[in-house]
Amino acid sequence: MTIITTPNEFKQAAAADLALLREKKPLVHNITNYVVMNYTAMALLALGASPIMAHAHEEVEDLTSISGALVLNIGTLTDYWVDAMVKAGKKANERNIPVILDPVGAGASRMRTEASKRIIREVDVSVIRGNASEVLSLADETSKTKGVDSLHSVDEAARAAGILASELKTVLAVTGKVDLITDGTSFIRISNGHPMMSLVTGTGCTATAVIAAFSAVNPLPLYAAAEALAFFGLVGERAAAEANAPGSYQVKLLDHLYLLNPESFKKGIRATFD
Amino acid sequence: MTIITTPNEFKQAAAADLALLREKKPLVHNITNYVVMNYTAMALLALGASPIMAHAHEEVEDLTSISGALVLNIGTLTDYWVDAMVKAGKKANERNIPVILDPVGAGASRMRTEASKRIIREVDVSVIRGNASEVLSLADETSKTKGVDSLHSVDEAARAAGILASELKTVLAVTGKVDLITDGTSFIRISNGHPMMSLVTGTGCTATAVIAAFSAVNPLPLYAAAEALAFFGLVGERAAAEANAPGSYQVKLLDHLYLLNPESFKKGIRATFD
Amino acid sequence: MTIITTPNEFKQAAAADLALLREKKPLVHNITNYVVMNYTAMALLALGASPIMAHAHEEVEDLTSISGALVLNIGTLTDYWVDAMVKAGKKANERNIPVILDPVGAGASRMRTEASKRIIREVDVSVIRGNASEVLSLADETSKTKGVDSLHSVDEAARAAGILASELKTVLAVTGKVDLITDGTSFIRISNGHPMMSLVTGTGCTATAVIAAFSAVNPLPLYAAAEALAFFGLVGERAAAEANAPGSYQVKLLDHLYLLNPESFKKGIRATFD
Repeated sequence: MTIITTPNEFKQAAAADLALLREKKPLVHNITNYVVMNYTAMALLALGASPIMAHAHEEVEDLTSISGALVLNIGTLTDYWVDAMVKAGKKANERNIPVILDPVGAGASRMRTEASKRIIREVDVSVIRGNASEVLSLADETSKTKGVDSLHSVDEAARAAGILASELKTVLAVTGKVDLITDGTSFIRISNGHPMMSLVTGTGCTATAVIAAFSAVNPLPLYAAAEALAFFGLVGERAAAEANAPGSYQVKLLDHLYLLNPESFKKGIRATFD
Repeated sequence: MTIITTPNEFKQAAAADLALLREKKPLVHNITNYVVMNYTAMALLALGASPIMAHAHEEVEDLTSISGALVLNIGTLTDYWVDAMVKAGKKANERNIPVILDPVGAGASRMRTEASKRIIREVDVSVIRGNASEVLSLADETSKTKGVDSLHSVDEAARAAGILASELKTVLAVTGKVDLITDGTSFIRISNGHPMMSLVTGTGCTATAVIAAFSAVNPLPLYAAAEALAFFGLVGERAAAEANAPGSYQVKLLDHLYLLNPESFKKGIRATFD
Repeated sequence: MTIITTPNEFKQAAAADLALLREKKPLVHNITNYVVMNYTAMALLALGASPIMAHAHEEVEDLTSISGALVLNIGTLTDYWVDAMVKAGKKANERNIPVILDPVGAGASRMRTEASKRIIREVDVSVIRGNASEVLSLADETSKTKGVDSLHSVDEAARAAGILASELKTVLAVTGKVDLITDGTSFIRISNGHPMMSLVTGTGCTATAVIAAFSAVNPLPLYAAAEALAFFGLVGERAAAEANAPGSYQVKLLDHLYLLNPESFKKGIRATFD
């Protein structure tokens, strides 16, 4: 592992981690939503990882224990599923396996906001990936983010994310036109990606799974998340060169998750640090 | 909104509603089956709407409340899911949000027939979309449709559908080679579509979701359903010009849900009224 | 039905069964996992069969009763689903409908191994399809396979499979680079297939569903399974000629399930018997 202090070092490390991922083929255990299960499994396979999808209380700990990373995604949650996530998450913590949370729809229903907060309370989460409104809905009433008008500007949203990351002691990966990854101290911005990605259901969920796969080979969540989002964003750009409509684009995203190699990845990354 | 009395006015209104749909991007809340969740979400996004998939009792009312239409689809039902549908449906009624029911497999198992009838009894449904045997299985023992031999001819089936629509006080959209949409008084027949559509799982479910999206912008269920079926049928025709096998065809349907524009839609509609 | 004693007779029978399948369009009832539901339904439709997906305890018996074969797949099991599988399986036995088991992940968690063993104990299963580690995990502690080092060589694995098939009184279809189908007495090896298949999630599950469809038209499980694996393997070869990455390949597999005709199937089969 390298100490990363320049964009160039980041690119180098990212390409190396992609190569390592494809060599190690880490198991990624997903407790995720019904909508994206097939696509997430396909994406992880295409990328070079090995997906496990399992949610039964009787077996989640067994399967987390043999995995290199755990994805908790509340996209079609019920209490049973959230309990399974907490159980698996605690086992992951015990075994030092990175846990990546996708708080799908937090803020849109009370149940989702509360389930996300419960997971964060009971499990040490390495990275939380969501859009700005999902991520910022995770702030408690006493959070200092409450004084920041995150809707006012991109800069204010970034400031709020930084405060929240410090309070939650985790890395936040806020995806949007430009992705922001922060642990409260460092801020990485990734400008890879393509507008067509928003026409495919669960691209956010896929990004989360890709972060999990990179986290299985890079123990620094800040960099694992940034590498993953740069990678998936670049895949989105490649796919857009070959498809002009969402059905074909959904297929091409999978193709380029498989086809994009470390060398081209390194060249295509657009990242800024501060 | 226009009073529609001629096929030409219908085409005009249909094209305008498509444009409106793409401008407004209505949220469509789906409580649907596991098989089609990804595809339905993709179809709604491609069409220009915004899908929500959620079924937990604790949150269905919250999510229905922020939506422009609600889809209830019993394709892989259990009691829990049917209870969620009734709960969401009642909230939709309270808020005047259109509810579209897809009684998948009604008639094939007692559970499905009864679940469909329960939903119809407890929720005011705007449109029921199914094939002839699904729709006609919803008739009660005392229904006047029982004297009509719906299997005898297409005309008899249409007569039975008209009687049933009046009895259930809803719009029935009976899809098949020719789609029939009726409220018991008016009968619209749509002859768009392509035989390849029957090789894609859940094209019926997709049609139902498309009806929901049009219902979010057109408050007259009879016309919203007819517009939606003409649109999706025409999409099926376009896709068939580019794919000769079901995998590719499934992808191309999504592409053309996105690509078909109001002007081409208007020109391609084949509808008759009586 | 033909008594099959030579590879040539096998090819002849396989082609005839494919033609019969496409003529009869048998219903195949699937109690399967969330990840592959859409793809399995698509695969069965493309092949020429008619899928039913249903798991509610109240209706599984009704739907098994009208089907030509039953698939039990534990890919995302909970106790509720396993109970549904046993219920449907018993009904299938009562009605003499073939039951095909896919013990996904048996051996990887205690729950999966035990659920598989319970199904085998309570239901007469026609064919069990899995990879070598899944299938061999089904051996009891007292099994004579325990003395065989199945990891030592392909021959030893085949010997273990033969012993286990005799003990379980079923047909085992062990898929891998070469597929082995055995009832403990006869051994058929199918060398159709392509490495790209392992990049598509649920190709094993699809193979299982294809075995079910062939079992609905061929009452000899040994041959039904071998025909199905040869067919799906050949489909995998055809698809690989047209796609070099997993998204496109997933789509092309469906296309060729539909396009491969009896004549080409017969010519492409690579089977050995002993």
